[in-house]
Amino acid sequence: MQVKNIAIMGAGLVGSLLSMYLKKHGYQVTVYERRPDFRKTGNYGGRSINLAISERGWKGLQGVGLEQAVRDIAIPMPGRMVHDVQGNLMFQPYGKPGEAINSVSRGGLNILMIDAAEEAGVTYKFNQRINEINPAGTAASMEDMETGTTYTLEPDLIIGADGAYSLVRYAMLKTDRFDYSQAYENHGYKELTIPAGPNGTFLIDRDALHIWPRKQFMLIALPNIDGSFTCTLFFALEGRESFEAIKTHADLDAFFDTYFPDVKPLMPTLHEDFFGNPTGLLMIVKCFPWSHGNTMLIGDAAHAIIPFYGQGMNCGFEDCTVLNDLIEEFNHDWSKIIPAYQVARKPNSDAIADLAKLNFIEMRDLVADADFQFKKRIAAKVAAAYPDKFIPVYSMVSFSHLPYADALREYYRQDEVLSEVLTWPGVREHWDTELLPDIAQRLFNL
Amino acid sequence: MQVKNIAIMGAGLVGSLLSMYLKKHGYQVTVYERRPDFRKTGNYGGRSINLAISERGWKGLQGVGLEQAVRDIAIPMPGRMVHDVQGNLMFQPYGKPGEAINSVSRGGLNILMIDAAEEAGVTYKFNQRINEINPAGTAASMEDMETGTTYTLEPDLIIGADGAYSLVRYAMLKTDRFDYSQAYENHGYKELTIPAGPNGTFLIDRDALHIWPRKQFMLIALPNIDGSFTCTLFFALEGRESFEAIKTHADLDAFFDTYFPDVKPLMPTLHEDFFGNPTGLLMIVKCFPWSHGNTMLIGDAAHAIIPFYGQGMNCGFEDCTVLNDLIEEFNHDWSKIIPAYQVARKPNSDAIADLAKLNFIEMRDLVADADFQFKKRIAAKVAAAYPDKFIPVYSMVSFSHLPYADALREYYRQDEVLSEVLTWPGVREHWDTELLPDIAQRLFNL
Repeated sequence: MQVKNIAIMGAGLVGSLLSMYLKKHGYQVTVYERRPDFRKTGNYGGRSINLAISERGWKGLQGVGLEQAVRDIAIPMPGRMVHDVQGNLMFQPYGKPGEAINSVSRGGLNILMIDAAEEAGVTYKFNQRINEINPAGTAASMEDMETGTTYTLEPDLIIGADGAYSLVRYAMLKTDRFDYSQAYENHGYKELTIPAGPNGTFLIDRDALHIWPRKQFMLIALPNIDGSFTCTLFFALEGRESFEAIKTHADLDAFFDTYFPDVKPLMPTLHEDFFGNPTGLLMIVKCFPWSHGNTMLIGDAAHAIIPFYGQGMNCGFEDCTVLNDLIEEFNHDWSKIIPAYQVARKPNSDAIADLAKLNFIEMRDLVADADFQFKKRIAAKVAAAYPDKFIPVYSMVSFSHLPYADALREYYRQDEVLSEVLTWPGVREHWDTELLPDIAQRLFNL
Repeated sequence: MQVKNIAIMGAGLVGSLLSMYLKKHGYQVTVYERRPDFRKTGNYGGRSINLAISERGWKGLQGVGLEQAVRDIAIPMPGRMVHDVQGNLMFQPYGKPGEAINSVSRGGLNILMIDAAEEAGVTYKFNQRINEINPAGTAASMEDMETGTTYTLEPDLIIGADGAYSLVRYAMLKTDRFDYSQAYENHGYKELTIPAGPNGTFLIDRDALHIWPRKQFMLIALPNIDGSFTCTLFFALEGRESFEAIKTHADLDAFFDTYFPDVKPLMPTLHEDFFGNPTGLLMIVKCFPWSHGNTMLIGDAAHAIIPFYGQGMNCGFEDCTVLNDLIEEFNHDWSKIIPAYQVARKPNSDAIADLAKLNFIEMRDLVADADFQFKKRIAAKVAAAYPDKFIPVYSMVSFSHLPYADALREYYRQDEVLSEVLTWPGVREHWDTELLPDIAQRLFNL
C-alpha cells in the first residue's frame, strides 16, 4: 500500500492536528471542509461548548510545536467550583497543586491550528461537500459548493476526521461486518452567557470550572480570556422539568429563580440566549472497524462521546499521536499502521465513552453528595500523601497518558475499595490519621 | 395527515403481505423493488435459509386469505431431530401433539404472495432503485434501472420494507435522535444441499428440523416438498475451526468426516456447494424511532434479527397484523397509527432479537447437554399434564400470540425455576412422579 497523497475530510481540531503530523512525515496533505472558511466568515458554526485541554491534548499540540501558542489563549482551571442552591461555594481541586485543565474556545483554537497547518504546507479547501464516497476504492465524488462543479478525488488514503455525523463513516455502513451504533442521550444542552464585568473583569471566580449540580440537570461555566463565561445548561429534552417544558419567559424565570438564583443576575441575555440558541443533542457513536480499504476514521468520526469528561478533543488528539508513533514504528507501511492503530485505540475510546457517561452522573448528581465528596477527599489525601504510589482516576484521565481502558478499570476498583472503606468503624473520625496507611494500602495502583 | 397513496419499498415477504392489508383498507398501494421480477428471472437472490412458519406467520397469512395456499407448499416439522457425532438420533417435540413449525422455501412463498397481491390490485414495480430519500418529506428520487430514467416519487406515506440493509432506514440515520445499532455475529452461514432420493423420497426423516449441534458450530436441515433438504452450516468466520480455516477439499472432507459423518454421504455436491456458495453474514439491527415524518419502517428494516428462532418473518408478519388492527382502531388516522405501532412493536422486536441469540446457544450447544434436555423434559411434562396452567417458552413464541417480551421474561423465570429444581434431592428419580405437582406449581404461568 503506497501512500503519498492523503485527503483528510474535515478541517476541525483533529483533522487539522493530523494534517500537521502527516505533513511532517512528508505526505502531501489536503484537507476538505464542507463549511466556508470560518476565518473569513467569522461564523464558526459547529459545537460551542468550551473545550478543556488536558495532558493528552497538550502532547498532541507539543508534537507540532503549538503548545505555547495555545497556552496563551487558554485559562487554567485547577478545580471545580460547586454552587449549591443557597449560593454556597465549594472548591474541589482536580489534581495536585499545579495541575489544571484549560478552558479554550473551540473556534479560536481551530483557527489557530488551521493557520499553523497552512503555514506548514497543508492545503485547505473549504466549501467542499462529499457527494458520494467509495470506502473501498479511495474515491470520493466531491462538489465545490461555491461554483457547483463536481469532481472526483482519488488520493492514496482518505481519512475521515469529519466528526460525530461523519459522512465517511456513513459510507462504511454497508461494508461487510461493520459494527455500528449511535445512541442519543435524553439530555440536550443550551449555550448561555455570563458577560465580562467592567474592564474585562470576571464576575465569578476565573480559576475554576463552575458547576451548578441539580441531580437531573446541571449548569456549567467555563472562563474565556475576555472575562466572559461560556455557560452550558444540560437538561432533559422532554418531561416535567425539561427544555420542552420551559415555554415562556415566566417559566424560564421561575426555573432559574428556583435552581440557579446566584447566577441569574449575572445573565442579562438569559431570555434571548435560552429562546434564541438551538438545543444541542448529545450522541454517543461506537463502531468497528475504523477502516475499510484505503479509508480510515479518526476522532469523533470513529468514536463520538458525550462531553462530561472534557476528553473528546483530548482523545482525538491522542489518536493522532498514537498514529504518529505507528507511522514511525512501521516505517510508513499503512497496511500495518491502520490495523495497529484501530486495535490500539478502540478499547480506549470505548473506555472514555463509558467514563464520560459516569462523569455526567457524578457532575450533575454526586458532586453534591456527601459520600461522594468523602470518597474524593480520601482519594485526594492518599494521592497527596503517597504521590508515587497512587493516582486517582480523574488524574489518570486528565493528567497522565495512561490508557483510558486502565482508567476505567481503576474507576470500578477504586470505587469498590472506597465504598468498603466507608463501612469501617470509626472511618469518619480517623480516616486521615491512624486509618490512612491501611486505606492507602488498599488504594495503591502504581 | 391525509393518506391515500402509499409506496412500499421492498417486494419481499413483509412488503408483500403489508401491501395486501393496506389494499384491503382501500389505499392505493405501489411496491417498488430494486431486483428484477424473480418470477421471470427464476433467480431469487436474497437470503436462502428456509423459513419456518409458525403461529404468528399463519395469522398474517390468514388475514389476507393465503393460509391454505401456503400450507399446500409447506412441510410441518413437529420437532427437532438431533444428530450426535456417532449418528444417534434423538427427537425433541417442539410443542404438543399437532403443533409444528412449517418449512417453506423463501422464494416460493414470495412468488405466491406477489401473485396474490397483484391479483388484489397492488401495483408492483421491479428494477426500481432508490437514489435518495428524504425521510421527512415523503419524497424519494428513484431510478428505473432498465431504462436509466430517474423520477421523483411523492406518495402520502413511504413504508420501508426493504430488509436488513434498508435504504429507507439508512436515510433516517441523520435525523434527530435516531438511535441505531447494527452488530455482526462472529458466525456466518453457508447453504448446502441434501438432494431427494429416488422418486422424490426423503433421505432423512421428513417430519423434523434436523440439527447437528457441535458446540461452536452447527448444521441444520429443513425439508422441501420435492424431497430435498436445504441445509445450513453456521460456523465461525475466522479462527482455528472456521470458514476461513477450510481452504482445501481435503480440509472440508476432514471436517465433515470428524463432525458430520452421517450426513456427508448424503451431500454429493458438498464440495461445489461449500466452495461455490457465498458465506452469508448475520447482523442484528435495532433502531428507534421507526418513523420520521411520513416515512416508517417495518419488518427487518426496523429490526433485523438472527435466524435461530425461526421468527424473522413471523415477527415481520405480526408487525403487519398489529398495524392492521391499529388502522381500524384509529380509523385511518396515521398521526396516531404510526406512534402506536412503533411503541407496541419495539419491546417485542427487541425481545425476539434476544431470544434468537439465546436460541442459537441452545441449538448449537445445549440441545446435546444433559441438564438442558432434562429441563426441557420437565417443562414438556408439566405442559402436557397441566395444559391450562403452563406454556413453555418455545410454545409461547411459536404457538401463541403472546407478546415476545412476555416470552423473554418467561425464559429467564422458567430457567431460574428449573435450575433450582435440578438441585432438589431425588429430583432425577422422582421428577415425573411425586415431585411433579410441586415442580408444576413453581412453573405455572397462566
